[in-house]
Amino acid sequence: MKLVLAIVSNDDAALVNNSLTKAGFQATKLATTGGFLKSGNTTFIVGTQNDKVDRVIEILRRQCSRRTQIMPSTSAPDGTMYGTYPIEVTVGGATVFVLDVDRFEKL
Amino acid sequence: MKLVLAIVSNDDAALVNNSLTKAGFQATKLATTGGFLKSGNTTFIVGTQNDKVDRVIEILRRQCSRRTQIMPSTSAPDGTMYGTYPIEVTVGGATVFVLDVDRFEKL
Amino acid sequence: MKLVLAIVSNDDAALVNNSLTKAGFQATKLATTGGFLKSGNTTFIVGTQNDKVDRVIEILRRQCSRRTQIMPSTSAPDGTMYGTYPIEVTVGGATVFVLDVDRFEKL
Ligand code: NI
Ligand code: NI
Ligand code: NI
Repeated sequence: MKLVLAIVSNDDAALVNNSLTKAGFQATKLATTGGFLKSGNTTFIVGTQNDKVDRVIEILRRQCSRRTQIMPSTSAPDGTMYGTYPIEVTVGGATVFVLDVDRFEKL
Repeated sequence: MKLVLAIVSNDDAALVNNSLTKAGFQATKLATTGGFLKSGNTTFIVGTQNDKVDRVIEILRRQCSRRTQIMPSTSAPDGTMYGTYPIEVTVGGATVFVLDVDRFEKL
Repeated sequence: MKLVLAIVSNDDAALVNNSLTKAGFQATKLATTGGFLKSGNTTFIVGTQNDKVDRVIEILRRQCSRRTQIMPSTSAPDGTMYGTYPIEVTVGGATVFVLDVDRFEKL
């Protein structure tokens, strides 16, 4: 038995939750108030058999990998521009810790 | 030293907290925003000596085990019933992970 | 790779966060709703290489150790005093668990 602790961007949390649930994993979400991602993030706890850890990480990789996005921006650094223009931002990303579980109980 | 991570129903969280504290365990509650239980749930972190893990799980089993309850319901699936009638619902339940602690410090 | 789980007083959380970040550690804060400290507390998750665990604990010790503080109090136990007078209170403190990490991924 392993415990997967995954810290993901809030933007990806809903998709991660859905994908894990559809694949039969029970994920618990912890409210995370700050962290390594600039935007807010969510911590998931997923308990799983050893041979399914790869499947959990595969799901996380598909839903959370860091990627660039073109987003509209409304301000220029020097304050001289008006209107919106596109900028490239990095979003997503996840930090995943896999821990060994000594004992597991469903009560 | 072991770390017990227990995810319990919000309904049972207060009793769990009291029972653990009375038995001399220090429990930390994490705010859990979703998870494997339909209703909200709470995650407890309890650090304990190896030989007291059974005692922690015994407390959790007594306070959190899944059980059925008769509750009043006010709506029928087809919308044709009025008033309240009793339905049987499953409440409680807990998922418990016991992890080995490499090092423990009280600062 | 190790995972450091540190439960600290809310009063110390901002300084802990700053110090860990300045020292190059990525700390994730979990919202903690109750726990072993009378006042509210915050749980930090910090992933780090084995040989840097001492550095993390050193930072926590500097920022969070239990200490006494003189604070103004406005009420006497028997309700007969008026105005404020100084009392000594214990603040801070931290509980630290270090766990071994089986596998670590940055996605
Ligand atoms: Ni195992
Ligand atoms: Ni141990
Ligand atoms: Ni390791």
